[in-house]
Amino acid sequence: MQLVRSSRPRLASFCSPFSSASAEGTARLLRVGHVLRESRRFSESDVVRYSEVSGDRNPVHLDDAFARTVAGFDGGRVVHGMLVASLFPSVISSHFPGAVYVSQTLTFKLPVYVGDEVLAEMQVTYLRQYKNKYMVKFTTKCFTNEDSLVVEGEATTIISTLTSSK
Amino acid sequence: MQLVRSSRPRLASFCSPFSSASAEGTARLLRVGHVLRESRRFSESDVVRYSEVSGDRNPVHLDDAFARTVAGFDGGRVVHGMLVASLFPSVISSHFPGAVYVSQTLTFKLPVYVGDEVLAEMQVTYLRQYKNKYMVKFTTKCFTNEDSLVVEGEATTIISTLTSSK
Repeated sequence: MQLVRSSRPRLASFCSPFSSASAEGTARLLRVGHVLRESRRFSESDVVRYSEVSGDRNPVHLDDAFARTVAGFDGGRVVHGMLVASLFPSVISSHFPGAVYVSQTLTFKLPVYVGDEVLAEMQVTYLRQYKNKYMVKFTTKCFTNEDSLVVEGEATTIISTLTSSK
Repeated sequence: MQLVRSSRPRLASFCSPFSSASAEGTARLLRVGHVLRESRRFSESDVVRYSEVSGDRNPVHLDDAFARTVAGFDGGRVVHGMLVASLFPSVISSHFPGAVYVSQTLTFKLPVYVGDEVLAEMQVTYLRQYKNKYMVKFTTKCFTNEDSLVVEGEATTIISTLTSSK
């Protein structure tokens, strides 16, 4: 997994220092409006391993024929929604190790198929200091095929510094 | 993972046929008020494997000293919240293979430590037929130590039958 550094046109107006700042010193200090991004392609192996560790053996994830003919997923096996959504805490903790995850809402709008490239985008909407910690709220979205919104929601986290470690 | 069949006193009033019905024929037909339950203990190996497949290597999950001294978790390493929450779609799909997960809200209220026994409880709050499918909404909760509410939220799923396969 890597931080996606190229701007997407739809988000250019946010001018995220986390992806395109001119001043490196301020680029790593989180503030409202900033966008964290990361992309990942979930493989068959990822889905099988996730099924094993989570115990979620729904055949829509493991049985291509079932996914297509019974569940009606044209693209075959679907990646577990919660595996796709795991990108959100992964992205946060990659920037802010020790982050504590407080809440997450998730709407699974479209299927993510095995092999699809998924782009996770998290934009800071709220940031407040409490003593020596910070509460940060993000909108959390995943896209496939560049512009298909597949997962949407919001996350709240508590971090101890606004400086990204990446 | 197993379906917990013993009633918890706090939920006895729901008289869930999924755990305590007298008539087996109706016990497997989902309706509003029913409760699905399942318990699981997450091991160190589970947490490591989940970190690998999700990419979430937050040290609060992997480094006991960090979890205790930096993050302030008295019980040491914390199970990923999204791994705990994976119990919800796992429970649904174990009863209703092919279930499609539409949405989930999650509030992580207390840490779940490696080795804690977690009880997931999902109660049906809404059930409506649309053509040949059913939309079902659940409250979704996880407890440790019998009565500590650690994760709370709601889930919406679409299933093709009300008859549990378990």
